[in-house]
Amino acid sequence: MGQTITEKIFSEHVGHEVYAGEIVRSPIDMVIGNDITTPISIRAFEEGGFEKLANPDGFAIVLDHFIPAKDIASANQARISRDFAEKHNLKLFFDEKDMGIEHALLPEKGLVLPGDVIIGADSHTCTHGALGAFSTGMGSTDISFGMITGGNWFKVPESIKVVFKGKPGPYITGKDLILEIIRILGVDGALYKALEFTGDSIPYLSMDDRFSLCNMAIEAGAKNGIVAYDEVTKEFLDSRDSLRAQPKIHYSDDDATYCQVIEIDVEALNPVIAYPFLPSNGHSVNQAVEDNIRVDQVFIGSCTNGRLSDFKVAAQLLEGKKVARHVRLILTPGTQKILREATKLGYIDTLVDAGGVVSNPTCGACLGGYMGILGDDEVCISTTNRNFVGRMGSRSSKIYLSNTAVAAASAISGYITDPRSL
Amino acid sequence: MGQTITEKIFSEHVGHEVYAGEIVRSPIDMVIGNDITTPISIRAFEEGGFEKLANPDGFAIVLDHFIPAKDIASANQARISRDFAEKHNLKLFFDEKDMGIEHALLPEKGLVLPGDVIIGADSHTCTHGALGAFSTGMGSTDISFGMITGGNWFKVPESIKVVFKGKPGPYITGKDLILEIIRILGVDGALYKALEFTGDSIPYLSMDDRFSLCNMAIEAGAKNGIVAYDEVTKEFLDSRDSLRAQPKIHYSDDDATYCQVIEIDVEALNPVIAYPFLPSNGHSVNQAVEDNIRVDQVFIGSCTNGRLSDFKVAAQLLEGKKVARHVRLILTPGTQKILREATKLGYIDTLVDAGGVVSNPTCGACLGGYMGILGDDEVCISTTNRNFVGRMGSRSSKIYLSNTAVAAASAISGYITDPRSL
Repeated sequence: MGQTITEKIFSEHVGHEVYAGEIVRSPIDMVIGNDITTPISIRAFEEGGFEKLANPDGFAIVLDHFIPAKDIASANQARISRDFAEKHNLKLFFDEKDMGIEHALLPEKGLVLPGDVIIGADSHTCTHGALGAFSTGMGSTDISFGMITGGNWFKVPESIKVVFKGKPGPYITGKDLILEIIRILGVDGALYKALEFTGDSIPYLSMDDRFSLCNMAIEAGAKNGIVAYDEVTKEFLDSRDSLRAQPKIHYSDDDATYCQVIEIDVEALNPVIAYPFLPSNGHSVNQAVEDNIRVDQVFIGSCTNGRLSDFKVAAQLLEGKKVARHVRLILTPGTQKILREATKLGYIDTLVDAGGVVSNPTCGACLGGYMGILGDDEVCISTTNRNFVGRMGSRSSKIYLSNTAVAAASAISGYITDPRSL
Repeated sequence: MGQTITEKIFSEHVGHEVYAGEIVRSPIDMVIGNDITTPISIRAFEEGGFEKLANPDGFAIVLDHFIPAKDIASANQARISRDFAEKHNLKLFFDEKDMGIEHALLPEKGLVLPGDVIIGADSHTCTHGALGAFSTGMGSTDISFGMITGGNWFKVPESIKVVFKGKPGPYITGKDLILEIIRILGVDGALYKALEFTGDSIPYLSMDDRFSLCNMAIEAGAKNGIVAYDEVTKEFLDSRDSLRAQPKIHYSDDDATYCQVIEIDVEALNPVIAYPFLPSNGHSVNQAVEDNIRVDQVFIGSCTNGRLSDFKVAAQLLEGKKVARHVRLILTPGTQKILREATKLGYIDTLVDAGGVVSNPTCGACLGGYMGILGDDEVCISTTNRNFVGRMGSRSSKIYLSNTAVAAASAISGYITDPRSL
């Protein structure tokens, strides 16, 4: 009986063929925590009287949300992870010394791989599916179970097959594809299902596009998003300094079972803007231009769109231009490496010349942490993943989600703008 | 009758000779506000029914403490200044578009000059005295009086003459000189007095040293700190892109009256560390090394020591080294220009390689704003200006103030370290 890629990953992990709906106890290749969620996992671990991690080299703590500490509470919270990392002599502990957003940092360092089972106490852990892994967010106590046992219980998810057709036009990115999917499915349309991204558009998508695509699978309620290994994946992995292990490559069988198939005509797609207050509230950029939406802030960053290609397109669009007087443009790179490469390539100079400010790597403003919080009634166009009420600050602020080109173009005019019109 | 440089500046401004103790109403060349203090000034201005600034081109608003907004309150606070700047079409409004700490940014841009009378709603406004100006911090309502009238009332201060003797040894900086002065005078030893810095050490002090020196005059209670124009000042001014006006150069007369003269043997000076909880609690670095003081955080930045020379010395000491495992090293440049020059010169790469994190320009952690706040019981060695209880975070945290070389050396070992021993 044919299997999906997600079923194959679990089958390989548990040692026999398993199918959607089965409850399995699977070993885990990488367990991930951050500064917000890890302290709760640590408490459960320590209150349980456990002394040793099942797989210390498969446990990564990344302090990315609130460091360098934004306040006393953040500093105290980070301290719990720092002390635990020290006590357990963790190799995979990332703080101010090598800053990055977990979902940008771990792939960059070759720590997450095709065929992996990955869990993380962060909802956007689904990002790593872009590499052909099963990767999902879990609660902090589930993470502690992973820390203690090296595995966890999963219901193997049913899969929705998404077929992207055709070559993406100019400024159509992975972000637009996922915003379109979420628009179609709604925020719970893929609840506990795998979103398997396929079709002849896939080879056109860079790894950065694929990370954006899988990153927001959770915004349709999906358990995971996944793109099978191909030449683009291979090239990405080959360019890592090292890999944690040998990749395990799986492909869905032709006769695999899907609970739903969605076809998207990518060639016909316009950039998609998710209006407040749900990621599923997608509109074409044409509509947004017509609606003449004035913005106070443009935020480019986050685990969704804080990668090198984002800095590249922003720099290309802002080269020789100026940010509108009434707008502030904040750019937050995903990792130190991204920041350094963007610097070497001249993107940072261009962006600062245009009137942008570039922060250290951090989740920052995306979740209302720091580094660009919105005040009352302020409007932001943001490359991030959530536009819920108050997500980036005041409950009366409004967030429009878009790709980076739309955000950068909007910084110049101060109104939501179609980059194709520049 | 001989005059001090401070008396001469006021005499020139009021149009007749004035002396210490006299109350004068002087025109002001530059009025400065920041994101914290300006909203109060604006309220006073608007509640008074005033419509026009007396001298719009002599009023600078620099948003430097809490932007990009660290929280909703900061965003709302910044909005007040943004709206005022927009309404009054202010030329000298600096926000995310050209970020910098006011006391680093304004000299960099040639906006504060020798002979100026400058007031700012920030206690470290005394920094600009390094250029041979009279510059002092005032409350927000005094600032609004300056906004409305273009002038203000001053009691011409008595002067303390500080005579620095000899050539500074390795790693002896303007910061050590001022910490030594504050140690001698105490935090109120120069109350409402001018600290006039003179002596044969002065030519050895770079402009960056002089900014550090004058910056902390307020920490001895001084009304202002001042260094007369010389070749170093000239070179600094000549290298500006433009100057706001023609500098007016004054020197104290040989027979000027001083209320006190302090001589400091600079040649014999060791780096000075101000122990918690007062800037006057100075100890020699030798003592600090003996005391074996473990640090959790090293902070290099602020209007005191966030300049290019600080990044240079930090990079030189950290080149090829690593920050101690238990330490976080946070570096915050004073302006975008400083950050860009430090990047071009390779300092930033060196510092990040060593394990430091470099933020956007901001006051940041210095005043407990964001970007490196201290948790409970944490210890920080910091190049900033105040080590009061809770200044950078938790009331149980401790701050040791030092020059940048001491801070950088301490980052490597994790204990307060004499850079001369490396």
